[in-house]
Amino acid sequence: MDQSALFTITYGVYVLTTEVDGKMNGCIINTLSQVTQEPMRVSITVLKENFTNELIEKSNKFSVSVVDKNGSLDTIAHFGYRSGRDVDKFKDMPYVLDELNNPVVEKDCIATLSCKVIKSIDLGTHNMFIAEVVNAKKINDEEPMTYANYRDLKSGKLDQNKEKQSDSKEKAKDVYQCSVCHYIYDGDINFEDLPDDYVCPICKKPKSAFFKVN
Amino acid sequence: MDQSALFTITYGVYVLTTEVDGKMNGCIINTLSQVTQEPMRVSITVLKENFTNELIEKSNKFSVSVVDKNGSLDTIAHFGYRSGRDVDKFKDMPYVLDELNNPVVEKDCIATLSCKVIKSIDLGTHNMFIAEVVNAKKINDEEPMTYANYRDLKSGKLDQNKEKQSDSKEKAKDVYQCSVCHYIYDGDINFEDLPDDYVCPICKKPKSAFFKVN
Repeated sequence: MDQSALFTITYGVYVLTTEVDGKMNGCIINTLSQVTQEPMRVSITVLKENFTNELIEKSNKFSVSVVDKNGSLDTIAHFGYRSGRDVDKFKDMPYVLDELNNPVVEKDCIATLSCKVIKSIDLGTHNMFIAEVVNAKKINDEEPMTYANYRDLKSGKLDQNKEKQSDSKEKAKDVYQCSVCHYIYDGDINFEDLPDDYVCPICKKPKSAFFKVN
Repeated sequence: MDQSALFTITYGVYVLTTEVDGKMNGCIINTLSQVTQEPMRVSITVLKENFTNELIEKSNKFSVSVVDKNGSLDTIAHFGYRSGRDVDKFKDMPYVLDELNNPVVEKDCIATLSCKVIKSIDLGTHNMFIAEVVNAKKINDEEPMTYANYRDLKSGKLDQNKEKQSDSKEKAKDVYQCSVCHYIYDGDINFEDLPDDYVCPICKKPKSAFFKVN
């Protein structure tokens, strides 16, 4: 069994948001698929530990925004690397409300979908939500960011015009990725210098679950 | 509702195969996602009308091969544009059998997964299969083909080194795609010259469901 074969599956990068009783939150996911055309339905998969998952279980609705290939990584970092249990991610992030009252993120994104959950499937560590698309909107005609683009951007392999690389030493730093949830370490300290009890902020796996990205 | 927003979702291109009672078949899908890491499970979505879907409903197992970005389009055409009800797709296609007795396609592919179905979800026009990955294999280190790459290859927008373009007039021909199942018309006759009762070979939608790809 060569687990790296699983890394050849193609994904996009999406901002997933929801709202329940006035509480809004969002996170980054890579699994979004259209599953049927008539009716227009999509599926998403979310780690159960995510606060956004907890909220969607109550709200039964969500918005997904398709991240722009040339968008800044700031929006991904804003939603991806910390929990809405600790911070209000919408305090300093522009959004518009859709007809389901989801906070829709358009910054660094090219399209948005507003979705009503019609089925939840318990997959153990994750929930899958099958949802009807009640509205779909193109923001512009840019290309979507693939998860491979994102990995390459983070590791400096992909040169993105808009990307600011003020520190060339930073660019040369080794990049480490969690083998479980694919989170890419983004801290200021070199990964090698992190304490031994460091755990992945997303899936809580130990430092040993990380591998060096070439 | 702008349906084109749905076209910004990122997919890969995969050869899906199975075997039941000695009958083998395969088709092309674009929806494959890893859904959990422990246990290692994936999801696929298959049009119910597909013969491969009918076989998987009985076999409860399948293999998926990840198509190579630089692979020839022949393998996609071989599995994608006709039904196994009419032809034996494995008559002139090399394959190896995996431990589940699935015929695994390695030609023009970079990785393969052998999977046991653990849950089937009826989505109306499609079935979703959640499956445990019992084996995973890398064939080489090439990049996967994304569905966007495939569209660009078909329309001549993406120049692929290995692609053979013996007829430059062929390359300039307008490309038409089914808005429902995303099938790209591949026939020798110009799409415009097809009879009015032409239907999509995949989803059976009428000629009017096709749009011109830029």
